Amino acid sequence: MPAREWPEGTAVYKDLDLPQSAHATRTRPYVFINMVSSVDGKATVEGKASGIGTAADRQVMRTLRSRADAVMIGAGTLRAEKLSLSLDDEDTGPSPNPLAVILSNTGNVPLESNLVRDERQKILVLLADSAGEAAARDLGRHATVVRVPPTSAGVIDLANAMQVLKAEHEIHRLLVEGGPTLNHALISENLADELFITLAPMLVGRQDTDAPTILDGSLTETQELHLLSAYLAGDELFRRYALKPGQDPDIGPDQAALTT
Amino acid sequence: MPAREWPEGTAVYKDLDLPQSAHATRTRPYVFINMVSSVDGKATVEGKASGIGTAADRQVMRTLRSRADAVMIGAGTLRAEKLSLSLDDEDTGPSPNPLAVILSNTGNVPLESNLVRDERQKILVLLADSAGEAAARDLGRHATVVRVPPTSAGVIDLANAMQVLKAEHEIHRLLVEGGPTLNHALISENLADELFITLAPMLVGRQDTDAPTILDGSLTETQELHLLSAYLAGDELFRRYALKPGQDPDIGPDQAALTT
Repeated sequence: MPAREWPEGTAVYKDLDLPQSAHATRTRPYVFINMVSSVDGKATVEGKASGIGTAADRQVMRTLRSRADAVMIGAGTLRAEKLSLSLDDEDTGPSPNPLAVILSNTGNVPLESNLVRDERQKILVLLADSAGEAAARDLGRHATVVRVPPTSAGVIDLANAMQVLKAEHEIHRLLVEGGPTLNHALISENLADELFITLAPMLVGRQDTDAPTILDGSLTETQELHLLSAYLAGDELFRRYALKPGQDPDIGPDQAALTT
Repeated sequence: MPAREWPEGTAVYKDLDLPQSAHATRTRPYVFINMVSSVDGKATVEGKASGIGTAADRQVMRTLRSRADAVMIGAGTLRAEKLSLSLDDEDTGPSPNPLAVILSNTGNVPLESNLVRDERQKILVLLADSAGEAAARDLGRHATVVRVPPTSAGVIDLANAMQVLKAEHEIHRLLVEGGPTLNHALISENLADELFITLAPMLVGRQDTDAPTILDGSLTETQELHLLSAYLAGDELFRRYALKPGQDPDIGPDQAALTT
């Protein structure tokens, strides 16, 4: 079935229908990742994803955030650039921001400079048990800090953290906005359900340093994806993939769904 | 305009119309690059592009080759895997292979093991002046060897090589099949016109070594692209980009052209 044009005046994914029935049976949230990539596969320009996306991409980010109970961001991504989870829209006016969930192994998270510029922004920091008490106290000025156990490698046990998010914080749908290290950890541990990718019409190449792709880490084998939908908006392509083909029969359609 | 579905029984780019009028005024061929990429931007699996593409992608490769006077391949790509430029098709029967143009700075090109398995295959090796005479003699057993001058950096002067291909070998339309180093050299020297990319529905990540993206090298700034067409075939996306937006008003349409 063909990809659909983005209809004038509406927006990609506005009618997105994420799975409902998974809620009762799963011990973790339904996890969907959203990233932007250049045509040569780079996820950042000069260290920042914001160097790649357009206005259309930012609208898609807001739409996906509005479908989530919380938005997860790795500490490295938050160190790299200022973020705002605002959903404010010219059409709908001010909306409450979704809960921000920040993962940190060390406590080195610049909440004040890079995230807390909106008083309405609620923040949950999942902090590894190994991080110091001073860092926890400092983060506690802006956020709820939850200690989570590490794996034997000393980093946060993501499977455990996900269970905490669902069982103790009622997070059923979790949007992940990277970066590449967090994406890799979730995908390689089989903790992600969908991957949304905006393909920006540009080549980045190597700049001062080599930018990562959307997935920074080793896979023991290639992972097959199933394309659920594809939209065009100008020269940009918006794609939605299922990460575990065939394992989620209850994935809901959007208006450009290719599977219906 | 929407991307088009690949109609059953036909093939992507079958009605591709590359520019005609450029022939008279340019001193180099019209250059179009064709690559395959995973969703996380990798151009190879275990060092080979053939690990990524599907049957649909191989059909697109044959279609694009049939539109070219010659197919250029970097020596590194030919060292990495066996290649066949066969156009043979179940529908049309045997066709003569396009001329293979191999670029080499050193003469280390495994023609016999990785390319010459088809007696009909004609080969032109563009060999840097700095390569040894023994290598040239060895390559000459299977190919026409043309010496080309190097740049001050000691690598083949691509702009000069392109002029030689057009002026002395009547190559007006040149398909480039990479690899990533050759793509980068052509794009950064402003010697490429279009970029065809197949987007394969898989994640590769890092395997034994880190695979390159379709573009391996530095760019001084990001390069804007213009999406000319997009097709879907199953879970694969086939995209055609102009590398110099606005500078090629004579780019011909294909049936999914987005610009008309």
